[in-house]
Amino acid sequence: MPIYSAPVRDYLFVLDEVLNIKSIDDMPGYADLEADTISAIMSEAAKFCENELLPINLSGDEEGCTLNPDGTVSTPKGFKEAFDKYNEGGWMGLSAPEEYGGQGLPYIMGIVMEELMVSSNHSWAMYPGLTHGAMAAFEVTGSDDQKRRFLPSMTSGKWTGTMNLTEPHCGTDLGMLRTKAEPMGDGKYKISGSKIYISSGNHDMAENIIHLVLARTPDAPAGVKGISMFIVPRNHIDEDGNVGEMNAVSVGSLEDKMGIHGNSTCVMNYDGAVGELIGEEGKGLQGMFIMMNAARLGVGMQGLGHSEVAYQNAAAYANDRIQGRSLTGPKNPDGPADPIIVHPDVRRMLMNARSFNEGARLVAAWAALLVDRSMHHADEAEREKASDFVGLMTPIIKGVFTDFGMQNALECQQVFGGHGYVREWGMEQTVRDVRIAQIYEGTNGIQALDLVGRKLPAHGGRAIQAFLAEIQELIDRNKGIDGMADFTDPLAKGLGRLQAASMWLMQNAMANPDNAGSASYAYMNLMGRVVLGAAWTLIAAKCLETLEAGTDGEDFYKNKLIVGRYFMKWRMPETGTFLKQVEAGCEDLMAMTADAF
Amino acid sequence: MPIYSAPVRDYLFVLDEVLNIKSIDDMPGYADLEADTISAIMSEAAKFCENELLPINLSGDEEGCTLNPDGTVSTPKGFKEAFDKYNEGGWMGLSAPEEYGGQGLPYIMGIVMEELMVSSNHSWAMYPGLTHGAMAAFEVTGSDDQKRRFLPSMTSGKWTGTMNLTEPHCGTDLGMLRTKAEPMGDGKYKISGSKIYISSGNHDMAENIIHLVLARTPDAPAGVKGISMFIVPRNHIDEDGNVGEMNAVSVGSLEDKMGIHGNSTCVMNYDGAVGELIGEEGKGLQGMFIMMNAARLGVGMQGLGHSEVAYQNAAAYANDRIQGRSLTGPKNPDGPADPIIVHPDVRRMLMNARSFNEGARLVAAWAALLVDRSMHHADEAEREKASDFVGLMTPIIKGVFTDFGMQNALECQQVFGGHGYVREWGMEQTVRDVRIAQIYEGTNGIQALDLVGRKLPAHGGRAIQAFLAEIQELIDRNKGIDGMADFTDPLAKGLGRLQAASMWLMQNAMANPDNAGSASYAYMNLMGRVVLGAAWTLIAAKCLETLEAGTDGEDFYKNKLIVGRYFMKWRMPETGTFLKQVEAGCEDLMAMTADAF
Repeated sequence: MPIYSAPVRDYLFVLDEVLNIKSIDDMPGYADLEADTISAIMSEAAKFCENELLPINLSGDEEGCTLNPDGTVSTPKGFKEAFDKYNEGGWMGLSAPEEYGGQGLPYIMGIVMEELMVSSNHSWAMYPGLTHGAMAAFEVTGSDDQKRRFLPSMTSGKWTGTMNLTEPHCGTDLGMLRTKAEPMGDGKYKISGSKIYISSGNHDMAENIIHLVLARTPDAPAGVKGISMFIVPRNHIDEDGNVGEMNAVSVGSLEDKMGIHGNSTCVMNYDGAVGELIGEEGKGLQGMFIMMNAARLGVGMQGLGHSEVAYQNAAAYANDRIQGRSLTGPKNPDGPADPIIVHPDVRRMLMNARSFNEGARLVAAWAALLVDRSMHHADEAEREKASDFVGLMTPIIKGVFTDFGMQNALECQQVFGGHGYVREWGMEQTVRDVRIAQIYEGTNGIQALDLVGRKLPAHGGRAIQAFLAEIQELIDRNKGIDGMADFTDPLAKGLGRLQAASMWLMQNAMANPDNAGSASYAYMNLMGRVVLGAAWTLIAAKCLETLEAGTDGEDFYKNKLIVGRYFMKWRMPETGTFLKQVEAGCEDLMAMTADAF
Repeated sequence: MPIYSAPVRDYLFVLDEVLNIKSIDDMPGYADLEADTISAIMSEAAKFCENELLPINLSGDEEGCTLNPDGTVSTPKGFKEAFDKYNEGGWMGLSAPEEYGGQGLPYIMGIVMEELMVSSNHSWAMYPGLTHGAMAAFEVTGSDDQKRRFLPSMTSGKWTGTMNLTEPHCGTDLGMLRTKAEPMGDGKYKISGSKIYISSGNHDMAENIIHLVLARTPDAPAGVKGISMFIVPRNHIDEDGNVGEMNAVSVGSLEDKMGIHGNSTCVMNYDGAVGELIGEEGKGLQGMFIMMNAARLGVGMQGLGHSEVAYQNAAAYANDRIQGRSLTGPKNPDGPADPIIVHPDVRRMLMNARSFNEGARLVAAWAALLVDRSMHHADEAEREKASDFVGLMTPIIKGVFTDFGMQNALECQQVFGGHGYVREWGMEQTVRDVRIAQIYEGTNGIQALDLVGRKLPAHGGRAIQAFLAEIQELIDRNKGIDGMADFTDPLAKGLGRLQAASMWLMQNAMANPDNAGSASYAYMNLMGRVVLGAAWTLIAAKCLETLEAGTDGEDFYKNKLIVGRYFMKWRMPETGTFLKQVEAGCEDLMAMTADAF
């Protein structure tokens, strides 16, 4: 049975010590986030995740969901009870507006919660996760009346939400979607079509399910401009919010997936289901992107969440498992063998995960802070700059975090040897579950294209120029400080390569757009390393400063410096390969005819 | 439903055109391997794999094995029928000695067969696979009488074999094993103990199962020197080879695994089962290593087999799936969208797999040739040199091929987007199945330690010195030739880094053995790239020569040059990162106390 202990101490370090969020006085909510407050919220969250979600993770995977003959879907044992407790605790509304019953905490606290829930139970976490995405769409594109009718019940968790985008013949290319919405004359629409891969599509945990469905109105133009978004509740809702009869919404089947078996991923059929427009007609993709961007950061946190729980279990196993002897002589001479943590190569696998996790936590918190700033800061210039950075960070966090998540889950599974391949230890479930994070909400290849094709060239490269300058400034600020060269030197090298890669793109992508395509994945990975290297530089500076000033918890800071040095020495050199791949160009990739593959 | 077409043309190229094996006249069997003969054998093998094994792969995964109340194990539907056909075709004895009923073909043809079978059905292929390992142990360590009594029935497939090494508390560290063997006075032994993860441990496909079991005799010294190997048939066998009553051998349970569900991986209990010694008392590990080395090359081929079938399916999907438009303008203007193969990043994922597959096939064939040479060549110096290279190549093929296999399976699954995550397309099974290859027969970390700790220093570095010289010679021989610089330049760079890494190990591993441990994985990967780069250099030279001379099948050779250039340009730069990781040393890995992890 897997173990998990929420990284409360580490988040306190990130939020309070490094980012010092309580000192942020130009945005609502931050000044209240004293260390004690963060600690109290996180301890409660940790208790919920460790005691309620973790115990039903392995069993939920084994049992899976069941589509009953009457069209209802049963979730695994304990899922509903945990959801009730989640709602009693007010967790669904943690960072939702107070006017709809939320607690109004900054988004940054919601992001933290995301990591903890996924570490404990990814399948379960998707039910509130999708609801948060839908709530974001309501907040931004819904009318006041729609907000009034739907948000309170979603904020309380009485109702949950879904996103209905994909159809059998179209995923990435939503312009091809066929689901129809016919006006009924009373302002409502009849929705008809079939959607696949609908996470949390139907289940027995909530009173109602609010589907947000992309569809085409009659005479809508072809392509994405003809797409609108509709609210289609599973059960009709009257003006007073009472839930009535079933809408013409049904589950075609449950998808038979590699993992996340506890989530009810459905084929959803709409047979003239009654819905209403949300946002403007023909602007459905805008609402979808609001959900998507929130969801993409959340998916990135799934990579981190899995990496963390995989690390914790592998580290415990490596300390427990007695096998062979240290290369430098017995470390457990009275026992029949040494614990395998004496082996450098076992530590390498653990360090890969840990050095990502601790760096990524800062990157995620910083990005969440920027999301808050982009939405709530009073100054438009501040909002714009924050929004630029969120744009850059979204594909990095989604794409790079989930790639690391997968690699780390695999390496931590590897630490277990044969035990990693059997179900009872939980590692193989982690691998199967984290895999989806590289695929959904836009595959990681799509993230890379979004970064290189959309985010880099926007506003004449304004965002990337500002980002490169910010990293340069970070280096300049730290490079003379004793002990910091282990961080600033590799970061400077990585930054130089990122600059060179950006330059290469500017010079070659216009002439042949396939050069942008061929470079995109390596570019995203290169930038991801630089972002993580920058995070470690900030962390190291804080640790050195704290140690210099004297502290009770010396080991915490000293170990951070060791883990950070590992990242800089072992992972930053990968930027060299990525630059070569960027500069390789598209020639060899595009040389063969399609049918020669 | 996944597709598969055996790479007959590619193996003809490797065996006949590049290695020209029919010209090998200093070893038995090779001169008969004319192109027509190879082609005839492979076409039959292809037919068997494509028509018998592939159709029961997905269903075998879904159905899995069942432990019946009477202790028998039922394999999935169709498995026994396919095994009967395999035996009718004489495939089990393909490269087994004629005196026991085999066809006496060189080992190289057996290795080819391994790839094809795993591509079609990994779980199924393990039943004959384990039998081949057991047969190898009989051939080398068995007495003439034992060979007479067991080998004919194993060669015909009437009986199958297993390897019983692992116990719950010991896997890598076999010195700790506890299974006991007590002499019965009549030359036989009573075997008692419990073994786990026993592939093909019990099943309904053969008349009998011959377990080769590692156990300790009374008063045997502690550690590996006290281990002997025993033949323990599931059912007793009389002097005439008739199979009688059950031995005291039973299945404790079936392991609940991530993949290879069609293979009956058992917990095996021995409760005073009657067995006989094979090989010398206290020399059980030697017999085990014979099985292991054969098995490790076979496991490497599993990495290749999965990578190949993953590639074929992803390439077909990328040509079929219509979604979005090419970055350089529509390529399918009359359709609603372009096939996704127009995207450079989709091609990148396909090229990663293909450029490994085609290079790896030559490396595998070369290694198999060396295995034959190490055993059958008349000249001792030739045998020794071949044996040295087999020693180096075994961890590379096991460790690096299966790592590529996993990465390629994941990337090919990624090409499918959401469809890759659901069962019906078969890609998620490929990922779950190939994963075991990185773990069993010694984890890949153990392979790396074997390479760096055992194979490199043996005989004063004789093997690696000869290997480095051979690669240098390959570069020198080709570097002036028109068109070869794309291959020899990156290879020379990789070789230089491998030399530097070897030098670093010589200078730092003696002073602190943990430096060997920390460098081992990166070193193995670095050497793996150089080996594959060398294979591509040989392939390119042959292609350029053939094109120069004129040929009907120009595209085959031209496409090979494109794929090879991709490998040299995109994958060889990784050697730079690996060298940095080797040179990073163990310091940061070993700095934290074990309990700080």
